[in-house]
Amino acid sequence: MNYQKILEEIHAEVQPLLAKSHVADYIPELAHISPKKFGMAVLTSEGETFQIGDATEKFSIQSISKVFALTLAMRLEGDAIWKRVGREPSGTAFNSLVQLEYEQGIPRNPFINAGALVITDMILSHLDNAHETLLAFIQKLANNKNIVFDLNVARSEKETGYLNIALANFIKSFGNLKNAPENVLNAYFHHCSIAMTCTELAHAGIFLANKGKLPWNNEKIVAPNQAKYIKSLMLTCGTYDSVGDFAYRVGLPGKSGVRGGILAVMPGKFSVCVWSPGLNETGNSLAGTKALELFTTLTGISIF
Amino acid sequence: MNYQKILEEIHAEVQPLLAKSHVADYIPELAHISPKKFGMAVLTSEGETFQIGDATEKFSIQSISKVFALTLAMRLEGDAIWKRVGREPSGTAFNSLVQLEYEQGIPRNPFINAGALVITDMILSHLDNAHETLLAFIQKLANNKNIVFDLNVARSEKETGYLNIALANFIKSFGNLKNAPENVLNAYFHHCSIAMTCTELAHAGIFLANKGKLPWNNEKIVAPNQAKYIKSLMLTCGTYDSVGDFAYRVGLPGKSGVRGGILAVMPGKFSVCVWSPGLNETGNSLAGTKALELFTTLTGISIF
Amino acid sequence: MNYQKILEEIHAEVQPLLAKSHVADYIPELAHISPKKFGMAVLTSEGETFQIGDATEKFSIQSISKVFALTLAMRLEGDAIWKRVGREPSGTAFNSLVQLEYEQGIPRNPFINAGALVITDMILSHLDNAHETLLAFIQKLANNKNIVFDLNVARSEKETGYLNIALANFIKSFGNLKNAPENVLNAYFHHCSIAMTCTELAHAGIFLANKGKLPWNNEKIVAPNQAKYIKSLMLTCGTYDSVGDFAYRVGLPGKSGVRGGILAVMPGKFSVCVWSPGLNETGNSLAGTKALELFTTLTGISIF
Amino acid sequence: MNYQKILEEIHAEVQPLLAKSHVADYIPELAHISPKKFGMAVLTSEGETFQIGDATEKFSIQSISKVFALTLAMRLEGDAIWKRVGREPSGTAFNSLVQLEYEQGIPRNPFINAGALVITDMILSHLDNAHETLLAFIQKLANNKNIVFDLNVARSEKETGYLNIALANFIKSFGNLKNAPENVLNAYFHHCSIAMTCTELAHAGIFLANKGKLPWNNEKIVAPNQAKYIKSLMLTCGTYDSVGDFAYRVGLPGKSGVRGGILAVMPGKFSVCVWSPGLNETGNSLAGTKALELFTTLTGISIF
Repeated sequence: MNYQKILEEIHAEVQPLLAKSHVADYIPELAHISPKKFGMAVLTSEGETFQIGDATEKFSIQSISKVFALTLAMRLEGDAIWKRVGREPSGTAFNSLVQLEYEQGIPRNPFINAGALVITDMILSHLDNAHETLLAFIQKLANNKNIVFDLNVARSEKETGYLNIALANFIKSFGNLKNAPENVLNAYFHHCSIAMTCTELAHAGIFLANKGKLPWNNEKIVAPNQAKYIKSLMLTCGTYDSVGDFAYRVGLPGKSGVRGGILAVMPGKFSVCVWSPGLNETGNSLAGTKALELFTTLTGISIF
Repeated sequence: MNYQKILEEIHAEVQPLLAKSHVADYIPELAHISPKKFGMAVLTSEGETFQIGDATEKFSIQSISKVFALTLAMRLEGDAIWKRVGREPSGTAFNSLVQLEYEQGIPRNPFINAGALVITDMILSHLDNAHETLLAFIQKLANNKNIVFDLNVARSEKETGYLNIALANFIKSFGNLKNAPENVLNAYFHHCSIAMTCTELAHAGIFLANKGKLPWNNEKIVAPNQAKYIKSLMLTCGTYDSVGDFAYRVGLPGKSGVRGGILAVMPGKFSVCVWSPGLNETGNSLAGTKALELFTTLTGISIF
Repeated sequence: MNYQKILEEIHAEVQPLLAKSHVADYIPELAHISPKKFGMAVLTSEGETFQIGDATEKFSIQSISKVFALTLAMRLEGDAIWKRVGREPSGTAFNSLVQLEYEQGIPRNPFINAGALVITDMILSHLDNAHETLLAFIQKLANNKNIVFDLNVARSEKETGYLNIALANFIKSFGNLKNAPENVLNAYFHHCSIAMTCTELAHAGIFLANKGKLPWNNEKIVAPNQAKYIKSLMLTCGTYDSVGDFAYRVGLPGKSGVRGGILAVMPGKFSVCVWSPGLNETGNSLAGTKALELFTTLTGISIF
Repeated sequence: MNYQKILEEIHAEVQPLLAKSHVADYIPELAHISPKKFGMAVLTSEGETFQIGDATEKFSIQSISKVFALTLAMRLEGDAIWKRVGREPSGTAFNSLVQLEYEQGIPRNPFINAGALVITDMILSHLDNAHETLLAFIQKLANNKNIVFDLNVARSEKETGYLNIALANFIKSFGNLKNAPENVLNAYFHHCSIAMTCTELAHAGIFLANKGKLPWNNEKIVAPNQAKYIKSLMLTCGTYDSVGDFAYRVGLPGKSGVRGGILAVMPGKFSVCVWSPGLNETGNSLAGTKALELFTTLTGISIF
């Protein structure tokens, strides 16, 4: 498969979309990025890397961090996490409080904000400085020490994150946070602010395509069935309120972030990360989703 | 009308209910009160007072404070308040976030917690120490300087009030609080903690039965049509999720609090306050609601 | 009180509203009426009638029939009706299925369509030709044999009433209809199609202002407390999703219909009916609501 | 892979579950089946069949028919179907009307009842006797003329299907049915009543594992990308309100029916059908879901 040629074809084809899209601007630190940015990187299970465009530019990974937080929580707590968070798609907008009220403080899945707050709370119960630990974990997954927080983003989220403060206190009112809401929120905002490139994210996700192991040293991150579980959750819950559309068009387990990144994996074959800050109406990268759709169409490879 | 005899008859009839009911215990300061307490006081527009049982014992007025906060906000802002809060019954549980999400941060009415937070925010925009101002206002309405905060209750609400913290931050996320959520919450928790007796509350509410004026000195609190407005809101929104049942059985505009108090008024005739801490399943005083039902049945006086 | 002069003043003042409003056109039979129509009639408890404009023109009473159906069901079943229908405001749009699903087929109150279907089902269980019986009952209440169905309207509702067919079958699926849905719907559509004038409706409603008795022959229709109950339900549930606003502005128990009629009563004093086919965004007559607001403002009479 | 041995191991392991489960009894025709029944059949893309237990006993396929109806509609209308039905998981109970109201008559996906009614309406617009056509289509897919309706089930569904009658009329009220609701319902109830064995269903589904072609004669049923689309919808929407759990545990695209059948496919490898009438609390076969989980665990084959 000539991945490089495919990436070039995709790069050309998404150009018209870059002008049309809207960049998330709910915090000032996110608003000044050009919607023209586009990068994409593929890492095969054989260790080959292919990249195009702005694939080596850092952006804040936002909700993609939820995949790594879930992985870390699975290592710490195993199946016990499912007592405090569900694993069904939300069926409604990604920051909805309705479902939490209806289901008594149990978030529908680990990839909505409410679920990620509970997952963060679990990590915090094991480790005092949860966010440093998650950062170190991601550095290990990506085999790269050069990954850090964007502290401006973290602080900015904290100052204006009324909705997440509401969520955390609402979950606390049901007793489903063990730690103080402000501590959980502090760790959560730091997780979201981690800055990475497409290439770094493709590395950090390759263990999911490789039965839970890091291909370069065979280190086991999670058991094969746990890797399968994480991928199934990415497919059914990873792209906000458009998981059905994403599965239909792309056909890969993926997780998106509000900053325009999407990480996806093909079991046994590759991990792929795309970044383009312009969003569609469901909060996923417009050009990024299209790029992944083209990628599975042109390669003829999807899980279906 | 022999009000004293009617109160005695009611007192006897509600005794069996006092044993059956459940006392709100969501904060420790509320849990230790005996469900056997029962007091009732009537103040006629001619200035006569009738009282029975524990009518002179202090309790925290909780949501009944919302009537006085609304009155104060009406004086400060007039009809402008309806740009930021609705005036329809909620139709759902009294602390529901669903409606707020659906209606973009505009609370359905001033008597649900969300609405009272917005009302408090309005007062706070005019006055730095909103809670001292409200207390002074209530002292004037009740013609009684001997009314104070129960600071233990205020502090306890603050420490465990995750749901109200969630509400305030959620409203803030929609831009419908002008002040910092923690300041609004501080004032709000103080309002709820004001301690009064049935007799004091009957005095504080008499202006509503008297076309907006204090009967003892003819001081105008609000215009007659504003008094009418407040009473209509008490009827359609004053008793959480059982306004229909309360109107059906009692037939008076009333406002209840989670501590077991209910203040009701009959235009042109009287104000009446009942207190009994045991609650029914809709969060209103069980014996208190029954007592008011008996009162309108025995006197043959209701607005309908 | 010079009611005639007040009616004339109102008539003049609402003229600008008549041009602005939208007429319900969900069935062809309703669409061809001029939005310029406006009539109003007052009947005092002393038996005096005052009327203005198109007060003697027939229109289909639609949901106002729900008041008479409830009265009839109360006579047949007494308090047993509350096992199958609630008495709380709906808090949502008047044909919402959400609430029914949430509350397992128990409609929130007798004045939403779902509730009126259950009430109709109760009547049908007692009487084979429920709609003839209701018509005869209304003729008695109005002291007027000259009241009939508009069969074109009934047939038209039946042919296009998919939403009501859905409602009836949905309630049936919960077991809260005893008769076949098509029979209940047939009776219901006939009830809605009854054609009356403002003056006739004011007569038909006067028993509610007169402690449950017909003033001209003292015949008891319902007990005084039942008349009180019906009025309380009109106030808290009678005007779709704007009961709070109607209570606030008008301050009388009232019941509106989609054809633009509103019947309201002042206990001990009068019944009043207004008709103007243009609707506001909550489905109540725009000019009619304004006319009633002016009426209580100019007379200084309301229940509050 | 020794599929027969794996089926035997599964058969032994699910025995304890057969005693514990509840059989759907909403129509009399469904209630009399023993919960002890269990059958399973695998058809590989090489054409080998493996079966165990009651794999050759007929049962009514119920909602599994929705996969075939969608396939037929895709052939008739192509991508135009997505104008009238969504492709996102419902996130709520499978017969919910809430979502329809919220989304103005557009069902969330083709596999909830509302969506299947719209799909049936599409077929009906092309073909007068939609249900005969669907039956013939399934006979072709399964390469088997010996597949018929169970007319007792069809009639019984029709007589008691108030909820589906409500759904169809509700959708019609939004204009999203082109044909008369009773005609759509008649076709729909017939689809659900088709009786098949596990082995027959495994055959009928094999085109989905074979890029849209029948393996025995290479006849193209749908294009490869359409087969991919159908499988993605099965994964994200095929098992009511437990799609996340099913993807997590089983990891195959699957579609279940209330009669206890589940059809699943592994692209490029096999189709598998399991039947056991006892249901879990989400309406899927209890032993059937467990059997598929064991199947992917023991074979080590899933899409993730």
